[in-house]
Amino acid sequence: MVDASIVGFGFYYEKKVEVPAVELFKRSIIEAIKMANMEKDEIDGLVVTAVPGTIDNSHDTGIFLINKVASKVGINKLNYFDYVYTGGSSIVVGTYRAFKAVESGLANNVLVVGGGKGNLLKRIRSSMFESTIKNYVNEGVTYYELTIPTIEFYPTSDYALIANRYMREHNTDDSGRAMIAVKQRENANLNPKAIYRGKLTLKDVLESPMVSYPLRLLEVTNPVDGALAILVSKNASKSSISPIKLMGFGEATLTIPLAERENILDTPVKHSVRRALNSLNLDKIDYYGIYDAYTIMVLLEIEGIGLADNGKGGEFVMGDSFLPTSSYPINTSGGSLNVGQVGFTSGGVVLAEALYQLAGLAENRQVKDARIALVNTLGGVFDHSATIVLGVE
Amino acid sequence: MVDASIVGFGFYYEKKVEVPAVELFKRSIIEAIKMANMEKDEIDGLVVTAVPGTIDNSHDTGIFLINKVASKVGINKLNYFDYVYTGGSSIVVGTYRAFKAVESGLANNVLVVGGGKGNLLKRIRSSMFESTIKNYVNEGVTYYELTIPTIEFYPTSDYALIANRYMREHNTDDSGRAMIAVKQRENANLNPKAIYRGKLTLKDVLESPMVSYPLRLLEVTNPVDGALAILVSKNASKSSISPIKLMGFGEATLTIPLAERENILDTPVKHSVRRALNSLNLDKIDYYGIYDAYTIMVLLEIEGIGLADNGKGGEFVMGDSFLPTSSYPINTSGGSLNVGQVGFTSGGVVLAEALYQLAGLAENRQVKDARIALVNTLGGVFDHSATIVLGVE
Repeated sequence: MVDASIVGFGFYYEKKVEVPAVELFKRSIIEAIKMANMEKDEIDGLVVTAVPGTIDNSHDTGIFLINKVASKVGINKLNYFDYVYTGGSSIVVGTYRAFKAVESGLANNVLVVGGGKGNLLKRIRSSMFESTIKNYVNEGVTYYELTIPTIEFYPTSDYALIANRYMREHNTDDSGRAMIAVKQRENANLNPKAIYRGKLTLKDVLESPMVSYPLRLLEVTNPVDGALAILVSKNASKSSISPIKLMGFGEATLTIPLAERENILDTPVKHSVRRALNSLNLDKIDYYGIYDAYTIMVLLEIEGIGLADNGKGGEFVMGDSFLPTSSYPINTSGGSLNVGQVGFTSGGVVLAEALYQLAGLAENRQVKDARIALVNTLGGVFDHSATIVLGVE
Repeated sequence: MVDASIVGFGFYYEKKVEVPAVELFKRSIIEAIKMANMEKDEIDGLVVTAVPGTIDNSHDTGIFLINKVASKVGINKLNYFDYVYTGGSSIVVGTYRAFKAVESGLANNVLVVGGGKGNLLKRIRSSMFESTIKNYVNEGVTYYELTIPTIEFYPTSDYALIANRYMREHNTDDSGRAMIAVKQRENANLNPKAIYRGKLTLKDVLESPMVSYPLRLLEVTNPVDGALAILVSKNASKSSISPIKLMGFGEATLTIPLAERENILDTPVKHSVRRALNSLNLDKIDYYGIYDAYTIMVLLEIEGIGLADNGKGGEFVMGDSFLPTSSYPINTSGGSLNVGQVGFTSGGVVLAEALYQLAGLAENRQVKDARIALVNTLGGVFDHSATIVLGVE
């Protein structure tokens, strides 16, 4: 079997840019190729991940989207290509696919690109999401009827529901969850490229405007424009970074819509993490990337990963954590809460920081001896969880 | 590595049925599970392939679509799931993915389901396709401008253009290409489930109404409703069929839009076939499934596979071929020209027949000693080609 590794990556984003989405892809791809010291025409595999609506104002996906992206960036013949859409976890699933495509000989150099214009989808989101949700009801499922009053806030109101239930179930208040925003901001202040920076206290978070009870404005990510490109290759010799290897991967999916689940706190995270870790112990993990579109996601992921027992995630957050110098460095870029949610998913943001850490390119927020990183990402409303473990020698 | 095989399949279709698309999936899944002697709750992986618009009247794809399908058919926890969309080749790519998911330990029993309501998309196709094609132009590609007069006939007019060019380039007439419809009808007359049956002569084809010069009505498939379900498992012991193994797979993609290609007769078929065959010779192939939405596709695939030299496909067709008893049994069900294009792609139709042949379930059209089958499928306008080689002991 071929020995595949990540040999380059590029992460380009801005709060808002008035260029086509494909141009964002192109900019991240140029960075990735440069890091890998590779020519564009060596690329013979392409995986595109994008939330429908972030490329242009249509739901169009699949072969046409990928062909357009490839054609625009000048990749003209592919032995392997894929469009992955598992929601916010797409880029992690796509990266795993790229490894497998190289390992199985389908292609030699596979480019994974994820992102798009978060701002574009923000503008058109109401009608897009309404159409998406309506598909649940077209064939008689009751989900839409049950949640119809909250559709305008989807998916925020669903995560709010979960946060609410969490507090009730575990008899906690908001502070542990809200503290996640504070910890991530401390990290963002070490990242000159973070879009949101500056001092942030727990009081600031708890007094920020209520979005959907109990989630407040500073607990919710804000979509921005950009893309992450990752190059997986069977030849690491020319790369300017140490090859980043795949050490484990797992995914898990719940197919019952949220409103119909027996227990809305029962997430797929523990299943995907267990599969990704395989025989590895958590004490081997040097860095954690945790999907952070909403603070409540991070809280439940911390518990799903096994960093804290159920209901004890808040206590873990309150302790020494998150900073590059702590025992548990988490989202050291500031996460999507502070970098912004690139292309309407937080997956690229948390994965990119893990890559910077493993490549030793995280500058003044570098985690010392970061050899193994675990990245957990989510899609849908806890519908899908994908966990990847990556490592360098 | 786990030894994966196809242990069951189900192929359900009707010319037109007034039930939701998910119900068509369910019916094919029930058949597949029954053949495999498996319980539904053993399924822990799901791959869905469907042309956007054939599930309901939206472009919705990805996580929500799969969750809906899974939820409706009662599959509630998945370790692996995927939505594949490479156009008409999707079901073959999805089947390969299922093998890889089982082999790599992501899941034990992966269900692949492809199809939907061809009739639904037929009703709404004009606006759907127009929106799809318009995405080419949104960011300045000239394809749309070049082809705008023909959009209403997309993709028929594109294949007509290719057929035209083929005749000019190779100095041939229509007859070799049109004869494909005749040969496939001869096979359809052996298949009681074919939707189009009865005597058909070359004269009938050449005198059928012109759709887009030089393609005539009887050279074009007609979308119908239905689905193909395939179950790939690491445990073949309970199955009622001999395990069907993956012997090879290849895909190839051209990313330049048709109107901008240097040579529109240069298809990706030969690349995907070469990769799928690997070191296998064509003389080992007992059965051929060839994507047949339009006769011109079959003609160029025959040449791409290597059954005939470039420009000589028509001569090959005119010779002894296609019938179950011939040296080159091709599309023995009658292909999608006679079965109908299930769910708006011909991939399921040609793949299903290969499975019936390998499982020895093709009844009075059974190819004697059919041990190895090559199935070639296409997506887009010769954008994508996927070839799979399957075999039984």
